[in-house]
Formats: sequence, structure tokens, C-alpha cells
Amino acid sequence: MNTKFNEELFLTNETGRMLYHKYAEPMPIIDYHCHLQPVEIYENKEFEDLGEMWLRGDHYKWRAMRTFGIAEEYITGSASYHDKYLAFAEILPKLVGNPIYIWCALELKRYFDIDEPLCAENAEEIYQKTTRMIHEKHMTRRWCMEHSNVRLVSTTEDPVDDLRYHIALQKEEMFTRVITAFRPDKAMFVGLESFSAYLEKLAQVSGVAIDSFATMLDALEARLRFFQQTTGTTVSDDGIPHFTWADYTDAEIEEIFRKGRANIPLTDHEVDQYQSAFLYEMARRYNRNGYVMQLHIGTYLDANTTGVQRVGQSTGFDCADDQCSVTSVGELLNRLTIAGELPKTILYPLDGTKIETWAILAAGFCDNGTKAKVQLGAPWWFNDQAFGIQRQFEACANLYPVSLSVGMLTDSRSFISYPRHELYRRVLCNYLGQLIERGEYFSGEEAIRQVIEDVCFRNANEFFGFGV
Amino acid sequence: MNTKFNEELFLTNETGRMLYHKYAEPMPIIDYHCHLQPVEIYENKEFEDLGEMWLRGDHYKWRAMRTFGIAEEYITGSASYHDKYLAFAEILPKLVGNPIYIWCALELKRYFDIDEPLCAENAEEIYQKTTRMIHEKHMTRRWCMEHSNVRLVSTTEDPVDDLRYHIALQKEEMFTRVITAFRPDKAMFVGLESFSAYLEKLAQVSGVAIDSFATMLDALEARLRFFQQTTGTTVSDDGIPHFTWADYTDAEIEEIFRKGRANIPLTDHEVDQYQSAFLYEMARRYNRNGYVMQLHIGTYLDANTTGVQRVGQSTGFDCADDQCSVTSVGELLNRLTIAGELPKTILYPLDGTKIETWAILAAGFCDNGTKAKVQLGAPWWFNDQAFGIQRQFEACANLYPVSLSVGMLTDSRSFISYPRHELYRRVLCNYLGQLIERGEYFSGEEAIRQVIEDVCFRNANEFFGFGV
Amino acid sequence: MNTKFNEELFLTNETGRMLYHKYAEPMPIIDYHCHLQPVEIYENKEFEDLGEMWLRGDHYKWRAMRTFGIAEEYITGSASYHDKYLAFAEILPKLVGNPIYIWCALELKRYFDIDEPLCAENAEEIYQKTTRMIHEKHMTRRWCMEHSNVRLVSTTEDPVDDLRYHIALQKEEMFTRVITAFRPDKAMFVGLESFSAYLEKLAQVSGVAIDSFATMLDALEARLRFFQQTTGTTVSDDGIPHFTWADYTDAEIEEIFRKGRANIPLTDHEVDQYQSAFLYEMARRYNRNGYVMQLHIGTYLDANTTGVQRVGQSTGFDCADDQCSVTSVGELLNRLTIAGELPKTILYPLDGTKIETWAILAAGFCDNGTKAKVQLGAPWWFNDQAFGIQRQFEACANLYPVSLSVGMLTDSRSFISYPRHELYRRVLCNYLGQLIERGEYFSGEEAIRQVIEDVCFRNANEFFGFGV
Repeated sequence: MNTKFNEELFLTNETGRMLYHKYAEPMPIIDYHCHLQPVEIYENKEFEDLGEMWLRGDHYKWRAMRTFGIAEEYITGSASYHDKYLAFAEILPKLVGNPIYIWCALELKRYFDIDEPLCAENAEEIYQKTTRMIHEKHMTRRWCMEHSNVRLVSTTEDPVDDLRYHIALQKEEMFTRVITAFRPDKAMFVGLESFSAYLEKLAQVSGVAIDSFATMLDALEARLRFFQQTTGTTVSDDGIPHFTWADYTDAEIEEIFRKGRANIPLTDHEVDQYQSAFLYEMARRYNRNGYVMQLHIGTYLDANTTGVQRVGQSTGFDCADDQCSVTSVGELLNRLTIAGELPKTILYPLDGTKIETWAILAAGFCDNGTKAKVQLGAPWWFNDQAFGIQRQFEACANLYPVSLSVGMLTDSRSFISYPRHELYRRVLCNYLGQLIERGEYFSGEEAIRQVIEDVCFRNANEFFGFGV
Repeated sequence: MNTKFNEELFLTNETGRMLYHKYAEPMPIIDYHCHLQPVEIYENKEFEDLGEMWLRGDHYKWRAMRTFGIAEEYITGSASYHDKYLAFAEILPKLVGNPIYIWCALELKRYFDIDEPLCAENAEEIYQKTTRMIHEKHMTRRWCMEHSNVRLVSTTEDPVDDLRYHIALQKEEMFTRVITAFRPDKAMFVGLESFSAYLEKLAQVSGVAIDSFATMLDALEARLRFFQQTTGTTVSDDGIPHFTWADYTDAEIEEIFRKGRANIPLTDHEVDQYQSAFLYEMARRYNRNGYVMQLHIGTYLDANTTGVQRVGQSTGFDCADDQCSVTSVGELLNRLTIAGELPKTILYPLDGTKIETWAILAAGFCDNGTKAKVQLGAPWWFNDQAFGIQRQFEACANLYPVSLSVGMLTDSRSFISYPRHELYRRVLCNYLGQLIERGEYFSGEEAIRQVIEDVCFRNANEFFGFGV
Repeated sequence: MNTKFNEELFLTNETGRMLYHKYAEPMPIIDYHCHLQPVEIYENKEFEDLGEMWLRGDHYKWRAMRTFGIAEEYITGSASYHDKYLAFAEILPKLVGNPIYIWCALELKRYFDIDEPLCAENAEEIYQKTTRMIHEKHMTRRWCMEHSNVRLVSTTEDPVDDLRYHIALQKEEMFTRVITAFRPDKAMFVGLESFSAYLEKLAQVSGVAIDSFATMLDALEARLRFFQQTTGTTVSDDGIPHFTWADYTDAEIEEIFRKGRANIPLTDHEVDQYQSAFLYEMARRYNRNGYVMQLHIGTYLDANTTGVQRVGQSTGFDCADDQCSVTSVGELLNRLTIAGELPKTILYPLDGTKIETWAILAAGFCDNGTKAKVQLGAPWWFNDQAFGIQRQFEACANLYPVSLSVGMLTDSRSFISYPRHELYRRVLCNYLGQLIERGEYFSGEEAIRQVIEDVCFRNANEFFGFGV
């Protein structure tokens, strides 16, 4: 039984191997959606150790550690990165079939050239070796991005963010271009207690007096333009938990806005109306400002409220909703199409089991001469592993041309998560190789080369207009 | 890398290859549900060119072309079939993993003996060659059907149709028997403005004065008998978009009917009640007239209303609903079972991701000595490709005997789409071969031969009572 | 084509074969959830014949027979076991791809060493041979369990059961330890006519006067302790058909309880409130008594009411709901977590197509130092075949460590259904072998051996605290 990292990982057919190594492997990376902190890119410090690299912000690993009953102290608590790393290394051999296992293996191989499997027995030795290498090679944040041939990353920021580090980064000479997505979710959560305070802040940074839903939209559009002027971005980042389209009038929305601001409780129907209006109006603004709308659909945030209270939001206590309907998002797209104001749109449904109905929806709104106007995004969050990626290829290529996809993103808080692009490319080439070997595709090597290069790099570059 | 059509397409195991070529390949075809125009079969003209064959009515191709941003002129617009064909040929090599790719390859091979992959470079040459062959061989509509060994096709017509071409076809001497399904959907859409005008027409053609829901049913049953007397059909074709069972009284239904006819707006609940009553009552009529009820479940029609207004219904702007519940259809089946009036029924759920709960439902209503009384239909519309077919075998054979299936249908508007039966048979034999090679089936060649022949031909012939 | 039982069944890769035969095959069985009758274990009679073994209580086979149109007489009716067996044998070769086929093959091989495939032609011969062997070897109920190396079985009983046979079994010297799960469903069905009579009985056997929801809970907790004192059990068995969490007050619940007891009709919302309160309160009691809560989610019981009236409940007329939401069960877990009273919990969703959202939910509630505190159960009922098991491994290992799973159970009414554990282990080892051969796991043989032994035996033993 093999006990070394295998360069033919995931590649079960000859054609797929050839395609991966020859065409996909050398392509540079565009990471058009991630959660890196711009301050870290700016300060560009060397990492402390592998514990920091792996366990500082990765809620995937935190969740996995909790299933093994590890004390929170060694997960997000006061233990040192060294000790957290040891606690994690101990469970790694038990994570068979989990993406964390193969992500860690790829990261050890690509950044530290380590072939052997990490386990409790060699954890300390590997800790020492990797710490030494980090300092010898001066592995900083930017080093990691350049080492992985990353041409562009897009962080994601709230409209009220002053983008100070992004502004500073524009002046740096860097291998990797850094932009940010525009993420206005907090203006959508009208029912939260924090809504009013958030609007105060938005008014302040935008310089727009907010006394209505309409003026709030003006403030958001001012910020959207500021984001674009500052970083040249064309990327939105909208999160939609359970969403039900509800018809509304402008007057109703203004009344709901007034209530939300005054912390008067809202009915479910009022929240649905507000969210419908908010997404519709933001989409119009994305469209007229040349943004691509990214809709992240069907989260079940803060499912375990005790965990959130103890450790914080986005630390592993979110789940996936299974009831968000394709017809509600369809009605949003339909209204925008009627108005002639549908922006380029990428749909990221979180419930991967229903991915096909979303691919069908996307194709139904492609029209009017724009290539891949509405498309399905890369498998997201709970789906961004070999299984989810392969399922999306196998199920959705039937319903929407996979050759038009803008490809993979990391969605990650880590600077060494770029091997997820490698994993995606391996699964892509293996899938294509299978089709070819089964006789399902025979247009030849040049045709398939173009598909691979498009999906790995060119489609994203052209669709978003990055020009890198 | 292979660049020719491969006769072992989809067949990845030895046993599957043997089974396909020895048993499945020679079986004739019964296409018990399609959307061919009887006038075309009657007039039996030669095709103009491959552009007409492929792009006259195929919304699968139209949808795909729109995702690539091709102008509507070259899709459904005023461009010539030649130019539409060229526009289509250009994207074909990009349709890797899409059923259109392999359908086109099979159609080029089976009707024109073309082995090489179509692309922009050879499109004109293949155009000339196929046009020449069409005229040399006099490839008419009936030629295509006979060439593919099609013993029976069932078109689908509205109850108000006068069946003039069907009547004429009964007098022709033909290789392929032609019947029609009975499709009463327009009488179910009580909430549409067109409902009243439709009933006028139905009254006229049936000779039944329609002044109530009950008399409308009488008119429909008169037509249902007329369809049967004319073509010998036993096939219904019912489409159910999102359906929620709702209890009702006869008086309520008559009141809803009155409102619908007077164009008085109906509540969602009233529409649910009407549809429940309509399907229940039609099912009783199917049962007493020896019809098989075909339920097409969970469409999301006209999702993109702008596209529909511009190009028309059924031109590629429909999607799939993801919320249609198994319990609502279950209640319909249950009420009919209680009444002892459940007809033979085939369920075609459109949301392929939830196929298993429908297979389970079907088995729960098999009873009383009829073989496969309620069964799952072939993968439909967005699911009728290798992936969808294989998923249905793998997932549903566990829940409902696949050996009882009435097998494939084209559901197509094209006269050269019969290779979809070939595709289905290849996937079937490959699936069976895998089971045999993994040790999951070892009853021997004669037993599996019977299963294959049943699914490819005999089950449909017996279940519908075609006797071809 | 092979026509003998194959010892490499399901094992398509070398590594998987080695792992299965070397590590999984020899492990003993813990069957922590089944539907065996304790009276049968106690009386320990020899079986009459293979007809009794197979067709006495197996609704899987009954359902399959009905799809073939076999008369109910030969399914559950008055025909002899011999004749039922012959009717069943005739359809067996048609059950290609169905778990019944391979279960029967495994049972013939493991209990009777029969290699050839059963069919109409050899049915009588095999009947004679197996009948002879049953009596020669004295194949009793306990013989079957011991022959399959079953160390523990858990039946499931209603709180009102007097456990007389369980009490008697505690005094027997047996290879297999027998306990029972606690299944309080009847106290949850507040809307049924039988509710009140059930409470009378519960009051009587518990000695607790039940005049409120609160005292009903006291009575149930008394029984729960009695079950534990009697058999040492730590296992609950809760069935949840369609479940919608609804907030409630204690006063509301007492009022609903009063109405339910008086047979006053309840609204859907009242039933939701009652079920929410019931599950919440039972969970607290499981937690403080050291029980593991097993939630069976999303049944669609008695879908075909005519079938149920004619043949009885649980005889093959149940189906699977497709609308039970992850957020409702999530809210139950969340409230219990807030209260600090969440017991160890196993989730068994019946709709296998949505399994992933449930795996995600389970991981979101692991916390506080308990290993696998909330986990996904083995594929259940309509999912307990190779396809369902493999899907769960492939889909859910990404979301929840499969190495923490308590593994397989039979959920069966049959004494010779233990090969389902074998089937699960084969699929497990094949899955692990594939990962290893694709390079997705390379921690070595010792690490994977531990995973296999944990999943096959040790996890269940430790999680439930059986100590066998």
C-alpha cells in the first residue's frame, strides 16, 4: 500500500493524466473570490509556523476537530499554534475521504515538498522542518501567492470598509493583483437589531444622508463606485439565506425600511418583500456599473447559536438549508430580464444535492448575445471537494456547457489553499479523459486543450474583464 | 487521442459490450411519446438539409446556442438553415459532456455514416455531403423512422384537435404505426385567460354543451374515445407544474369552474383544488377507457417570460421546479386507489435529483394483480442523457424492478432522434454488465437477455397493449 | 458469464479486496437496531422452511412481489410458505440491481452454502435442500445469530411493553446479548384517535396517573428507566414523519394535550407544536438517563391507505417524504444545545437524495468534548443497499468523518439478514481501497485498519457504551 504523496492523484485514466500535466497544470491562477485579509497581504509577514498557516482561520478544520471531541482550547482557544497543530495532526489519519486530508497533503507537498503522511508520530518532526523552511525561505503571504502562480485575488469587503489596505496595495509592485468584491449583505438583513447602526455607519462613509430605502441604495451605489475606482473590481458578493420572492410596492418597502430602522418587529412576509426589493435594486446597480452579480444561495447561518455565542460567527456552526427554491431566484432573474437590467450573474447554490435545477435555471436566462450571461458557480463551501466538483461536471455539463465555466475559486481564509485549484483541475481533466475514453468526445486534442485553458484561466479573465 | 466515432460508446466493460451488441442493438423501437407533427409524417417530404433536421424545432440546441451568446437570428430567427447550422457547428466542439454532442455524433453516424467530429473547419464540407445524401437517398420523415426500425410512434395532441392527419395516416401503408396521446392540459389551466375560449372550442368539436365542470369532463371523455377510435391509442399525456393536493367538494369545483370561465381571479388554493379534481376525474376516465396515465411532474414553464414573449413557448425558456412534493401526487394515487379507479400510471418527475422518492411512491401503489401498475418513466427532458439514465438505473433499481420498465422514449420534435434509444440501451447494458462483473448478478445469460429484450421492447408493447 | 456466487462481490479493486478479507470480514457484529420479536428469540424454534425465513415478515420482498402483479394470497395471504417461496423464486432473476437479489444470494451462501442462482427451475430442489439443512443443523433463531457472530442485538419496544421476554432472556446463557430500544412514537401522535387509549395503558403500566403532558413525560421516563434497568439499554428509537419545528409555551402544550386526549381535532400548527415539545422533552430525558437519541426522519407512512386496510401497517405501503426540512430538526438540536441537554444523537434521514445537508447539520452540533456527539446514521430502509451505502460514504465523508460512524444495522425483521453487515463492509472497504488507489489516502495499512475496525465494531460498542 502506497504511503507517499502521489503525483497522479485523482487521475484514474491515461487521457486525463496527459491532459492534466500537459495543459491544466501550467496554467496560472485567478482566485476571484476569497476571504483573505488585505491587512495581511499588505503587511506581508512571514508565517510563524504551520499551526498558524493551518489553524488560524480555517473553520473546516475546526469543525472536523469538534467531531472528534477535541477541547475548544485546542481548536480556537488559548493553546499555542504548536499544540493546536499537534491536536490536529493526531486526527488527520482518521480523516479518510475528507477534503481536509487531501488539502493538507497537497499543501505539505507543494509548499514544503513533504511526501510522507502526517500523523501523531511524525507531527513534531514535520513541525520543526516546516518552521525551519518558513524562515529559511521567508514564506510570507505574498510568497505563497507568487509560489502558486496566482495572478489575481479578490477579497471581499463590506461597503462601509474604507479599503485602506487595498488603497495601499495598489501602490505596491506585486506579482499578484489584489481587488475586492463588494458585499452588501448587512444592508439586506433588515430584521437584525444591528441594521440601524449599520446604516449610520454607511451614511457616514458614503456621505449620503440615509432617510429611506432609496437613499440607502444611493449610498450603496456610491460605495460600489468607490470600490471600483479604488481596485478596479467588477465582482459582487451577495449571500442569500432562505429566500422567498415576494411582490412589493415601493411604498411597502419604504414602510418596512422605516420599521426595520426603528427595530419594530417584521413579519416573515415583510422580510421576504424587503429582500426581494433589495436584491432587485442591487442587481440593477451591478448591471449599470459593469459588476458581475455573485449570488450565494441557501445558507443556514448560525444554526448552533450556542457555538456562535461561545466562539463567534463563521467559526464552524453554520449549516446548509435544503428548502431554498429555484423559482424564487428565478423570479428575481425574470424581473430583471423584463426590465432589461439583468447583470452577468453567477449562481452558487449551497445545497449541492439539487445543483441540477440551478444549472437549468441559469441556462434559461442566457440570452441577448452575452456569453454565459447567467452561469453556475464552482462548487461552494460544503461542496468544494473532489466529489462535489465531479458531481457538478457529470450532472451539470448535461444542462449547461462546462466549457463556459469561470472555473474554481478558493473561498478561503488561508494563503496556502491554492492547491484547491489543482484539485479542481485534476478532477476536470479526469472527467474529460473519461468522456474521451468512453467515446463520448472525439473532437481531438486541440479542441479539448482550448476547453481546459478556458475553464482554468481564460473564461474568468474575460467574463470579469480582469485583463491579467 | 481517438478522433473517430466509437462503436463501443459508453460501454466500459466486456459483459456490457456483449449484451448490447448481441441483444439490445437488434431490438426494434417503440417510441410511445414524442412531439412529431402528424402533418409532417403525412406529407412525408424530403428534408431540405441538416440545418432543417437539427435546428427547426430543437429547443435543446437553441438553449445551448444562447449560452454561447449567439444572436437569436441564428437560433430561431430569420437566418437560413445553412447559416444556423454553421453557427451551431462552431460551438459543437465546446459541448463536451453535453448530450447534444453525442446525439449529433450518433445522428451523423447512423443516418449519414459520418465518423469524424463536426467542427467549424469541416462544417461546410459535411453540410454539402449530408445535403447530397438526403436527396440521393430521399430521406423523408418516414424514411428516418423506418431506417431506425421504429415500429410505433405516439405523437401528442390536444383534445380539440380534429386528428385529420392521423385519420389520413390510418389509411396509409406504413412500416411505422402512428398513434397519438391525449393531452388535456389546457382544460387544467383554469386560471389562464385563454381557458374560456378553449372551452368554447372543446364544446364545438365534441358536440357537448359545456356549462359545468361535469359537462366539460363529458366533452373530454367524448374526445378521449374519439382519439381511441381513430388511432387505437391507450396513452394519455398530462403535465403537472407545481402541484399541491387540496381537498374539495363538487360544489366548490363548480364554483371555481364558473369563476375561471368568467375570468374572475382565483386564489392559489382554488387552483390547487381545481387541479386536484381535474386530475382525479381524468384518471377515472383513463381507467375506464383502458388508457395509461402519463404524469409529467414539476415543470417550471415560461420561467423567462421575456424570452417566451420574444420567441414563443417551448423554445428553451422553461426550467425545472424543485419543490413539487411526492405526497401531493401520492394523495392523488391514494384517492384513486380507494375508489378502485386507479389506471395504469407512469410517473415522470422532472427534478432528477429526487428521482428515488418517486420510485418509492410508485412501488407503494402497485397492487391487485397488475404488473407494474404504477411505474417510473424514463428519464425525461433535462434528464434524458447518459448521466440521468445511469442514475435512474443505479438509484431506482434498488427501489423498483428495472426489469419492469417500459423503457425509453424520445419526447422529441425531431425525426432523427431515435439514437436516443440506442444511447439508453448502451447505458442499460453497461449498467447490467457492471452488476454482473461485480458479482451482483449471476442468474446467467438467458435471464439477462430476457430483461434486456423486455425493457427495450416487450414491456412497452404489453403494458400499453400495442400489439406491434 | 459467471453463474456462481462470487466471494469478491462488490470488490472492484485490489486494495479493497485485501482490506475486506483481512480486516473487515473477521469482525463480530453489533446490530444495535432491528425489529426482531423477543418472543421468537426466547422460544428459539427451528425455522419451518426457507419460505418462513424469507417471507414471514419481509415487506421489502412483499413490495417487490406486488410490482410483478403477484396475487396478495402468495404474498401475505393464505398460501403456504412453500407456495409463497415458489412465487418469489420465480421473480428473483428479474430483480437485477435490487438489494433483494443480493441479500438472497448472500443468505443462501452464508447459511446454506448454496452457490447457484435461485430461479423457477431449481426452486423446488433448493427448497428441499434448505429444509433438510434447517432440520439437520437445527437452525433456530439463536443459531442464526451465533452463526453470524452477532454479539448484541437491540430490538425495539413500545414504552407500554412489559418486556416479559426480555426479562426472561436476561437469565439465559446466550452468545448474543439482547437489549431493546425505547420507542415512544405513540405518545407523539397526539392527533390519532388511539392517543387517549394509549395513555390509559401507559398510566397503568407505569403506575403514574397521567392528567397532563408533564405527567405523561413522567410516565415515559419511568418506563425509560425500567427499560434500562431491565436490559441495560442506552438506545432510543424515535420516528419523525414530516416535522416542522413550532415554538410553543407550556400552557399551549397542556391545552393541545387536553384536546388530543378528548379527541378534539387539532390544527396542523398545534400538532407541530406538540411534536416539537415532545421531542425536546424526550431528548432531555434521554440525556439525563444516558440514552442515545435515534431520530428516524421523513417517513410518509400509510401512503396507500387501501393497502394498509387490507394487509396492515408496515407491510409495504409506506413511502418516503421529500419535504422534511433540515432547519426544523436543526432548531430542535439548537434548543437542546442552548439548554445544555443535547444527548448523543444519530440522525437517520429517509430521503437519501438529501443526505448531505443532514451530515452538515450533524457536524454543526458536535461540540463540548464528546466524540461524534451528533452523527449521521447508516443508510436506512429505502437506502440500505450498496448504492445508498456508497453514496453516503462518497458524499458524506467530505462533510463528517466516516471513521467516527457507528456503522451498520439491519433494521430487519429477519434472523438471517446479517449479511447486510457484510454488504456494508464490502462497500466500505471498496470505497477505502478506491481512495487509496487514487492517491487520496496514503497514511498506510495500520491507520486504515483502525478505521475499518472502528466502523465495523468498536465505534458502536463505545458510543452506546455496550461493553461487549
